[in-house]
Amino acid sequence: MIQERLARLRSIMKERSIDAYLVPTDDFHCSEYVGDYFKCRKYITGFTGSAGTAVILMEEAGLWTDGRYFLQAGMQLKGTGVELYKMAEPGVPTVNEFLKEKLSEGMTLAYDGRVMAAKKAEDIKAIMAKKNVKVETEMDLIGEIWEDRPALSAEPAFELSEEWSGKLRVDKIAEIREAMKTAGCDGFLLSALEDINWLLNIRGNDIHCCPVVLSYLYMTQEKLVLFVNETVFSEEIKNNLTEDGIELMPYNAVYEYVKELPQGITVLVDKNKLNDALLSAIPGGVSVKDGMNLTQMPKAIKNSVEIQHERDAHIKDGVAVTKFIYWMKKNVGKTEITELSAAEKLLEFRKAQKGFLEESFDPIIAYGPHAAIIHYSPTEESDVPFQAKGMVLCDTGGHYLEGSTDITRTVVLGPVTEEEKEYFTRVLRGNLNLGAVKFRHGCTGINLDILAKAPLWEIGEDYNHGTGHGVGYILSVHEGPNSVRWKHLPGHGPVTVFEEGMLTSNEPGYYKAGAFGIRHENMMVCQKEEATEYGQYMSFETLTMVPFDIEGIEPSLLNTREKKVLNAYHEQVYETISPYLEEEEKAWLAEVTAAI
Amino acid sequence: MIQERLARLRSIMKERSIDAYLVPTDDFHCSEYVGDYFKCRKYITGFTGSAGTAVILMEEAGLWTDGRYFLQAGMQLKGTGVELYKMAEPGVPTVNEFLKEKLSEGMTLAYDGRVMAAKKAEDIKAIMAKKNVKVETEMDLIGEIWEDRPALSAEPAFELSEEWSGKLRVDKIAEIREAMKTAGCDGFLLSALEDINWLLNIRGNDIHCCPVVLSYLYMTQEKLVLFVNETVFSEEIKNNLTEDGIELMPYNAVYEYVKELPQGITVLVDKNKLNDALLSAIPGGVSVKDGMNLTQMPKAIKNSVEIQHERDAHIKDGVAVTKFIYWMKKNVGKTEITELSAAEKLLEFRKAQKGFLEESFDPIIAYGPHAAIIHYSPTEESDVPFQAKGMVLCDTGGHYLEGSTDITRTVVLGPVTEEEKEYFTRVLRGNLNLGAVKFRHGCTGINLDILAKAPLWEIGEDYNHGTGHGVGYILSVHEGPNSVRWKHLPGHGPVTVFEEGMLTSNEPGYYKAGAFGIRHENMMVCQKEEATEYGQYMSFETLTMVPFDIEGIEPSLLNTREKKVLNAYHEQVYETISPYLEEEEKAWLAEVTAAI
Repeated sequence: MIQERLARLRSIMKERSIDAYLVPTDDFHCSEYVGDYFKCRKYITGFTGSAGTAVILMEEAGLWTDGRYFLQAGMQLKGTGVELYKMAEPGVPTVNEFLKEKLSEGMTLAYDGRVMAAKKAEDIKAIMAKKNVKVETEMDLIGEIWEDRPALSAEPAFELSEEWSGKLRVDKIAEIREAMKTAGCDGFLLSALEDINWLLNIRGNDIHCCPVVLSYLYMTQEKLVLFVNETVFSEEIKNNLTEDGIELMPYNAVYEYVKELPQGITVLVDKNKLNDALLSAIPGGVSVKDGMNLTQMPKAIKNSVEIQHERDAHIKDGVAVTKFIYWMKKNVGKTEITELSAAEKLLEFRKAQKGFLEESFDPIIAYGPHAAIIHYSPTEESDVPFQAKGMVLCDTGGHYLEGSTDITRTVVLGPVTEEEKEYFTRVLRGNLNLGAVKFRHGCTGINLDILAKAPLWEIGEDYNHGTGHGVGYILSVHEGPNSVRWKHLPGHGPVTVFEEGMLTSNEPGYYKAGAFGIRHENMMVCQKEEATEYGQYMSFETLTMVPFDIEGIEPSLLNTREKKVLNAYHEQVYETISPYLEEEEKAWLAEVTAAI
Repeated sequence: MIQERLARLRSIMKERSIDAYLVPTDDFHCSEYVGDYFKCRKYITGFTGSAGTAVILMEEAGLWTDGRYFLQAGMQLKGTGVELYKMAEPGVPTVNEFLKEKLSEGMTLAYDGRVMAAKKAEDIKAIMAKKNVKVETEMDLIGEIWEDRPALSAEPAFELSEEWSGKLRVDKIAEIREAMKTAGCDGFLLSALEDINWLLNIRGNDIHCCPVVLSYLYMTQEKLVLFVNETVFSEEIKNNLTEDGIELMPYNAVYEYVKELPQGITVLVDKNKLNDALLSAIPGGVSVKDGMNLTQMPKAIKNSVEIQHERDAHIKDGVAVTKFIYWMKKNVGKTEITELSAAEKLLEFRKAQKGFLEESFDPIIAYGPHAAIIHYSPTEESDVPFQAKGMVLCDTGGHYLEGSTDITRTVVLGPVTEEEKEYFTRVLRGNLNLGAVKFRHGCTGINLDILAKAPLWEIGEDYNHGTGHGVGYILSVHEGPNSVRWKHLPGHGPVTVFEEGMLTSNEPGYYKAGAFGIRHENMMVCQKEEATEYGQYMSFETLTMVPFDIEGIEPSLLNTREKKVLNAYHEQVYETISPYLEEEEKAWLAEVTAAI
């Protein structure tokens, strides 16, 4: 099927004299996850992971993806004629290096400028200009061959009242207008969906597991225009928006609108988050200022109302996941449970919680060797039944009216090997040490990452993903600018100083291909500790309230301090969660959270 | 006395219409420590610390220095009319901010361009240009008022043979010439003394505790000119240099030589290490390329001969310091020992070791509250006798033919408080955890620093200095580009990736003003561990071989892993050092290095 699609694409490429066609994963908003309408890269390669770039030449094709997906992509690309390029591995060219190598003077590279971040496009254009390769950016060739392409999503939207958002949109807008003055810009062009939805306190359902409304936004000191399919709004919401001074225009009208921006003004955009076509639409007489979206930092720093709600959401989610773990342990080997049926069951537990909206991402329920595939999601084809041995890795989350969760527990279903226990404990040490750190304000994730990595580094091991990412409030579960990693990631913004109110995941792991996988993930909110003569001290409050599986722990590998941190956490989990459990669940929880 | 000097300086300033005179600490080579000829900043303020900048205006004067010297400078500046500006403290202006604030259009700022790094000068000139303040850079006003100024040093030089340097100078020169080709430069102008002496395998005695020959160097693919007072060389050395193609010219001739550089060539300089006057001497038609000196990285990465010698030097130094500690403990309360007499005694022990050249810096022997002054050195006025209680901080080092040492031990002389023991142990935990880390190649000191800091950060404490610095091979004990610190230091180069062979100190501390000070310092060499699928792993080999004082340790504060690291280190110290001790010293060492 993939080969047939590639053949049709190549036939159009030949007609139009296109030598290379580039297919990123993005939608028009540089989103991490995209609606079905936008899944061109999946359509043309068969690879279903959430990150990757395809390049189709006349004689060959390649897919670039990162360490999370090496195993999965390897399997899915088999027999398609699309070669896997493992990003950041020694000797593997980047997409740009590959294009530079393969294309020569007089050839043409094409892509759809609406699904390419402006910054990436700039790099590619610069490289191609040096080689006198022509770049065409107004061609949606996948769209031309994709006959049953889904329609653009336009699901009903809802508003978050002040009780849920902690701040009225008019107040947020006023703050952004102040920030615009400080930044010296007259206009602010915003296409990042999470930022628009955060700013206007609206949510929708246009991206699977990411409750946003597809839209663009342009604002000045005087006006604010939202480009959106207005059928998604009720009359009441439309009135509320109008009352707050928000003008509605059709979704696609943004391109023509931007072409008419007045000469001489300065417009702020984030080239990492704005698409190439939209940047190109800005007329020449307008001065473009590239910088982090002004909404990004206030969105990352949760207000006290959001944080209190997040605590509540994590209690609800903790109850659901704790019940789920007990249910798996009780039933494994007795009832048939598979990865998919377990995911169904967990969803049931979550749905039983008041305020649950939807899953915050596709559940990763990965049994045995599947857990070594870092972002594995079970499908009908891959699904396997659990046995009463080994471990299952469960990385799941929910959106609640109170906020979003992202949790991983690795659950022991029966006998495990010494090796599995050793790694389980080493990864846990990393999680405990990072979660319990106190640090000076000014630290970034680059300073802290070694706390999570050291127990694996000391034996020459590691994991191929970051240790932590920012988490949105009923938005994407991956958001910047906060993260925990030991090195700056090329192409991403700088790793940011931790500020009070930032929500970050803490998720070290270990993966042994073909054997097992372990990840322990909590969500943490950054909080202030005392200020001393040395400055402000900071720490993390762990929000996630679910026990770590003591059956996986080798206590002799924990030092005294790590045991203390674990025992204190388990005591808190029991106190917080047990009131919401049935008697037999409660008795079990008491046992598995007892001090070791 | 200081007030009188300031009055004379201001009277010349008035004659010449100078409104502000800037006095850095540098010599003509941007050295960290300088010969007596260059101590203008000390002459005009009375502050004897190794780092600081003075600014003299007609009505006020200020001295800027860093956290190491806040206490000392506060005492030494008392009554001089020179105000202390504590660098990097909240609300304290930088030198440049101060100058910007105080100087206005039409005024004149002056300094001696030979003692100002070109990069710093550029910043100042840019700020002053914006304010239309005139900058005069050819005025040595302190030289004009300093009647009994010492002469420029011109001490005899010696050569390091291949046995001691591990590499012939002709081979080093050939490698630098290759690096020049890669860097695309025709000429390389070098004024950093450590780099010149390293490259030519020469050493001298022109800076106290830093065995270098005052000199400048200019090289191309064809020639190499050393600007030096040639009386420092014996006939034999002169012949050797000539045979290796090195041309000698007078020290001060470099300025005229540089003025005659041919048009159209490209010359590499390191503006952080080249003085402003020398940069200004380069004619307009020469293209200047600013970058790290090509000698800096090969100098920092010690070769295997140098590392083996360093191991030997640290055994000798370990024997001397261990004997010294035993001597102090045995005699305190019985014989009069003061800070100065202890320093004398330690020097005796070092001199008894074959190959000892000189101390590698002025010994810091700081008893009781003196230890809280981070870079305190005892003087006749400050000297105090030891009592059989509390602690003495001993930060000292030696240059040996085999290499250089830098070690701090905090020694318990009698009863210590619970508080002192707690901090002693916390600082020790930081030292042990940093020293025992295994990490992926690519890590810098920014990744690792938290290992040393965490035990203090967890109680809201810290220390006002970096955790580690590079160490030269019979050169300056402070050298770049490797260091351990959690934040990039403004005005310094980037913190560098640790490479095999880099020598770095590991010296966390804690200082309680008016009460006590603790520092535990080892020297470590970076070494390769295994390469795995994740890349190359690295670790540190600890070179320093002296016990930590177990009388200061509260064992219950160490976790299991830290105890293991400490016990293994103490076992190694005993095995390495005991063969060189007298029987009673040996018996004592066995006791104090027994496992806890």
